[in-house]
Amino acid sequence: MIQAKGYAVQSAESKFEPFNFERRELGAGDILIEIQYCGICHSDIHQARNEWHNSIYPMVPGHEIVGRVKQVGAEVSKFKEGDIAGVGCFVDSCRTCENCAEGFEQFCQKHCAQTYNSTEMDEKTPTFGGYSSQIVVDENYALKVSETENLAGVAPLLCAGITTYSPLKKFNVGKGQKVGIVGLGGLGHMGVKLAVSMGADVTVFSTSPSKEQDAKKLGAHNFVVTKETENMKSLAGKFDFILDTVSAAHDLNIYLNLLKLNGAMVIVGVPDKPAEVHAFSLISNNRMLAGSGIGGIAETQEMLDYCAENNITSDVEIISIQEIEEAYERTIKADVRYRFVIDMQSLQQT
Amino acid sequence: MIQAKGYAVQSAESKFEPFNFERRELGAGDILIEIQYCGICHSDIHQARNEWHNSIYPMVPGHEIVGRVKQVGAEVSKFKEGDIAGVGCFVDSCRTCENCAEGFEQFCQKHCAQTYNSTEMDEKTPTFGGYSSQIVVDENYALKVSETENLAGVAPLLCAGITTYSPLKKFNVGKGQKVGIVGLGGLGHMGVKLAVSMGADVTVFSTSPSKEQDAKKLGAHNFVVTKETENMKSLAGKFDFILDTVSAAHDLNIYLNLLKLNGAMVIVGVPDKPAEVHAFSLISNNRMLAGSGIGGIAETQEMLDYCAENNITSDVEIISIQEIEEAYERTIKADVRYRFVIDMQSLQQT
Repeated sequence: MIQAKGYAVQSAESKFEPFNFERRELGAGDILIEIQYCGICHSDIHQARNEWHNSIYPMVPGHEIVGRVKQVGAEVSKFKEGDIAGVGCFVDSCRTCENCAEGFEQFCQKHCAQTYNSTEMDEKTPTFGGYSSQIVVDENYALKVSETENLAGVAPLLCAGITTYSPLKKFNVGKGQKVGIVGLGGLGHMGVKLAVSMGADVTVFSTSPSKEQDAKKLGAHNFVVTKETENMKSLAGKFDFILDTVSAAHDLNIYLNLLKLNGAMVIVGVPDKPAEVHAFSLISNNRMLAGSGIGGIAETQEMLDYCAENNITSDVEIISIQEIEEAYERTIKADVRYRFVIDMQSLQQT
Repeated sequence: MIQAKGYAVQSAESKFEPFNFERRELGAGDILIEIQYCGICHSDIHQARNEWHNSIYPMVPGHEIVGRVKQVGAEVSKFKEGDIAGVGCFVDSCRTCENCAEGFEQFCQKHCAQTYNSTEMDEKTPTFGGYSSQIVVDENYALKVSETENLAGVAPLLCAGITTYSPLKKFNVGKGQKVGIVGLGGLGHMGVKLAVSMGADVTVFSTSPSKEQDAKKLGAHNFVVTKETENMKSLAGKFDFILDTVSAAHDLNIYLNLLKLNGAMVIVGVPDKPAEVHAFSLISNNRMLAGSGIGGIAETQEMLDYCAENNITSDVEIISIQEIEEAYERTIKADVRYRFVIDMQSLQQT
């Protein structure tokens, strides 16, 4: 086995502490990645603290992973030593079910092995995530990352990037379309960058008037404070597409009403309460409300390539692993522009 | 002006009574239709009783209208005297806005003149519906109906037919697809007939086990009692498309969970309470929840032609106008298979 160092929580109440554990020996199709950066996703916090009531401890979170390939198995063809590789929200799936076959491994009908707080395909061996020194992963579930000086800014693409890219592509967002992005956090800021790059006319909806300048800097064309009811009314029926990135419970109807004929709104956040949807909000203008969950491997690769070509990265604040608790508190308060990324070299000081 | 007879309610609490009123003189583009049959839609009841809090009295309901063209205006080209014509849920719209231009007159951005409980484009002149002897309508808002011996069975197509046809077409329902129809009433029975005719494998979901035989007679391949939780669980992720025709408040999540990857569910009923939608019901499998409101004139004509070619009509119980109160009570109790249609000849006995 391969010795790995990481940071883990031992229970919902405990703080992060250094944690030594083992990664499997390289199989023929596996690669060993020396992790350089790992982003902090809000779902790391939910799971570390058992807020989704499905946590397995000890837990090493982290599913926005980038690093260098240190070693490759005998049959690996996609990577060679020294390449940059990424790992996103899952590390394996059955590969044969209908959903896997269609490239939606994240919805594997048998078992999707999440990168952490999950199990391998044996449904027994626990998985440990990217708050760690290295990871062994099947090359088919690793992503190729282009050489870049801003590798830290690439890490959040593995979750925040694909989560926003996938619905924008599915609904053919592009030139001539009026697109709304609800919420300007880790997901929202990626949504703005991506929708702008696709040529859409982008409006950011936020409850904080203070975010207007930031929204414009990110490329948004318009900014609307959600609480300004008159402004919202004047926009009724004007939007082709809205991406709602807010994960706190909130009223969806006020955004649905902004959609024009056959318009669609996609939610990517999971509030703890169900949303109340008025039938009339959907029936009027034949509107759609859809959900979207990350993306499959092929689409994640497409997104990474797209971002590399278009110089799109996440705006990040780099921290050491020792600052993890403070970073969690600040993430909860939305006091980060826009994603914390852990520099894994800091693990060596532990 | 043209003298017309009808049945009207004078307030939310009053019963239907004979009502004499005037239809406008024929304009150059108008046709005069002698109404033969008019279907009873549940929305007639909601509006007659002011349950949507927007009722205008006196009210002559009825928007599932078929009859013979008795007279045509000087410039009418689509109809000639003696043709069969239909009128659905609206009789005019602005004709120039984006939605009208795209053939979705029902969502006219200026004013959609509903067939009753509404106003003409002057937004002053009240409109009166099909519980009456004749109607004057612009030929562009009248539908051509093929000669048939079962004209009564055609009347409900003007609302129940188009309401179910439009979403089935939009989501490309066809051969090889597993389709669910929730509820087996006026809308649901049309949904079954249409989805079956399009080649789909159709499952009816109902709370009443007693409807199984009927569902099968209508062509459904499978029948599931919604309350049988184990049955519902075993169907998770199996459906391409679900059409939910229930207008009472109910749990949408149990049906959303039946949708496979990229599956869609469309609601066409308007319950008095908002639906509670769990984000996970949509995010898992990238599902869609959409609304659909009747259809535009072109699509309604397409539906009528499709039904004529495929011998599809509504299953109806024909009543006289004098039986209207009883029919309303029975409609509320869902004691009708599947639509009441008023024979307007009965008006002559008034």
